Amino acid sequence: MFRKTRLFTPGPTPLLPAAQFAMAAADVHHRTPEFRALYSKVLDQMKTFVGTSNDVILLTCSGTGAMEAAVSNLTSPDDEVLVLSAGKFGERWTAIAKAFKCQVTIVSKPYGQTFTLDEIKAQLKPTTKVVFMQATETSTGARHDVEGVAKLLQGTDTLLVVDGITGLGTTLLDVDGWGIDVIIGGSQKALMIPPGLAYLAVSERAWKRMESSRQPKYYFDLPKERKSAAKGEASYTPPVALVAALGAALDHLAQQGDGDLAKGRDLLIENAETCATMTRAAAKALGLELFALASPGAAVTAIKAPSEASSDDVVKGLKSRFGAIIANGQGEMKGQLFRIAHLGYFDYLDTIALIGALELVMSSITPGRFQLGDALRVAQSVFAEHTSKAAVAQPA
Amino acid sequence: MFRKTRLFTPGPTPLLPAAQFAMAAADVHHRTPEFRALYSKVLDQMKTFVGTSNDVILLTCSGTGAMEAAVSNLTSPDDEVLVLSAGKFGERWTAIAKAFKCQVTIVSKPYGQTFTLDEIKAQLKPTTKVVFMQATETSTGARHDVEGVAKLLQGTDTLLVVDGITGLGTTLLDVDGWGIDVIIGGSQKALMIPPGLAYLAVSERAWKRMESSRQPKYYFDLPKERKSAAKGEASYTPPVALVAALGAALDHLAQQGDGDLAKGRDLLIENAETCATMTRAAAKALGLELFALASPGAAVTAIKAPSEASSDDVVKGLKSRFGAIIANGQGEMKGQLFRIAHLGYFDYLDTIALIGALELVMSSITPGRFQLGDALRVAQSVFAEHTSKAAVAQPA
Repeated sequence: MFRKTRLFTPGPTPLLPAAQFAMAAADVHHRTPEFRALYSKVLDQMKTFVGTSNDVILLTCSGTGAMEAAVSNLTSPDDEVLVLSAGKFGERWTAIAKAFKCQVTIVSKPYGQTFTLDEIKAQLKPTTKVVFMQATETSTGARHDVEGVAKLLQGTDTLLVVDGITGLGTTLLDVDGWGIDVIIGGSQKALMIPPGLAYLAVSERAWKRMESSRQPKYYFDLPKERKSAAKGEASYTPPVALVAALGAALDHLAQQGDGDLAKGRDLLIENAETCATMTRAAAKALGLELFALASPGAAVTAIKAPSEASSDDVVKGLKSRFGAIIANGQGEMKGQLFRIAHLGYFDYLDTIALIGALELVMSSITPGRFQLGDALRVAQSVFAEHTSKAAVAQPA
Repeated sequence: MFRKTRLFTPGPTPLLPAAQFAMAAADVHHRTPEFRALYSKVLDQMKTFVGTSNDVILLTCSGTGAMEAAVSNLTSPDDEVLVLSAGKFGERWTAIAKAFKCQVTIVSKPYGQTFTLDEIKAQLKPTTKVVFMQATETSTGARHDVEGVAKLLQGTDTLLVVDGITGLGTTLLDVDGWGIDVIIGGSQKALMIPPGLAYLAVSERAWKRMESSRQPKYYFDLPKERKSAAKGEASYTPPVALVAALGAALDHLAQQGDGDLAKGRDLLIENAETCATMTRAAAKALGLELFALASPGAAVTAIKAPSEASSDDVVKGLKSRFGAIIANGQGEMKGQLFRIAHLGYFDYLDTIALIGALELVMSSITPGRFQLGDALRVAQSVFAEHTSKAAVAQPA
């Protein structure tokens, strides 16, 4: 049979066709009234997407660039900071904070696990300037308790900076209600467009903190970007094609929500949750174990390789037989787990089809462990149960 | 009449259709053999485009990000550096070097002018660690003498870092022959694709220098990117759509050169030179004065506004009557000059048509100063003369 190449990876994710067309057509100059109008509209829509009244800043970089921007704008050398680390992206916070000469305390948990609030509380001090964490740890599929951490910090001067790169659009995050000072996202995730654009929503007290930062920086100067943004501009040439794509994606989400972008974003989160729940049930039916068992997120489901095989076999089987691209474990986790993404432009057909392909691949790797159709049947049940109680997003 | 919107701006520039299609279609994951093959091919082609055997590094950022990367990777706080500054982008080198706490000496000339080698020599010291300059200063249209500066530095330990963002693809730059240690470019310039991707070609002695840099940095870590690039990867998620567009643009240039990318790049430079020479002659025929009279580059022609008007009138007239987007002066130069770009995907029809439109706009602003057709006629002569002695690039 033919094989169409399809991404089931946690970024880049499948592209929204309307965004692809908008991107290809965007032969525009950034210092024109037309582009300023688009940029201002997108920044405003992004506040709704993030769910905040805080200013949103776009940066031309990958998500890691925005993580650096948070560190270099909010800290000074020797600042005490706390990093919650239970995966590759937690480790990235530590590496960046150390590169900028912060005194880093780490609450560390093994890959796949999450933190208890007591473990975090034990490391918090009145002198802790910033806590850095992930909303969802993409390398393990775990969801962390952002709300709980935010409550620990209430009434203190400690800022909370959350990497929501795969959390935004897959997880409920009450940014203003909980008091998240900075939350970071990337274009190639739930937003359904290619990589190259990152964003941060920044609270007033975080803006205030930046005034005392003594880190050297130029390209990632957030207060400067805030002034530019107020004029509908970026300080340096923005990736106009990606901004046009982002505008199309946000319009699509608003359309999904019957003209209400916040509702469209909520449906996107619910959609990811349904895909994830179907996938988790399917994995169990195949005799597989979830990697982030205690706190699985909806951005990506990480599944342990069966004891008799490497996750390489699953990744390769899905690609070679069906054109389906899933993610292997990252770094030292390669071979031990595989990851199936649900963030962004996925739907029922994508999910049930991937589960069918996974069944066939696993039946070669672990023959006799299940009957063909077992995983599909439980996924059907989960879908029926989820959608009987929830509104189904309208087709595009 | 209808008005098609067309860019005559020095970045973003008109997009190559093949690159637009490649970009829209690039729903690919960056950690796959297919993408690694594309990335490696593009990095290799970029060496040919730049004209160097040095390694080329791609970064997800605007050109300014790559300028910062050069500063933060090559210097340490308190290093003595020399900046050649005669425009907005010269000033940017100074701002970045100061942000990273270098001791900055500036050879400063008024906007529109260039430097004499004696002026530069007088400021060079054995302790000067790096000289930062532009190949062409986009804000004024001036071309600087990179070869001359490189000769001054021969036999010294002073590194030469050149912002070739609008110089590459419009100006002959013998990177290895002259000894340019780092040259920087951007995607939205002569390369005919959207903004969001910058690049640097780095000499062996510049790589060596980086080992002793004590600047804090994480996202712009060039040695780390070099290691990733050797494996066909970027350290952080690259803008896959722009990388695909870049591949299409480089293939197009190779095709223009009958399979020889270096020849295609030379034709691109010659093409810009022909467009620029036509435009300069036309400006003169309209009674207008060039802004960078002594050393005009081929990337962009900066033309002074006539004494009785603001350049705003020219910019607005071309846009409102003909849909042609040119650039005004930047910052304090706004109102005083206008800029017409020639870098990248421009041809004879674009250039003669813009000159026709400019004639009509100027005939309203300065009636009686010239006869309709005067500028077009001299542009025709220039074209005929240029192309009788030079090979004409094949149509795409």
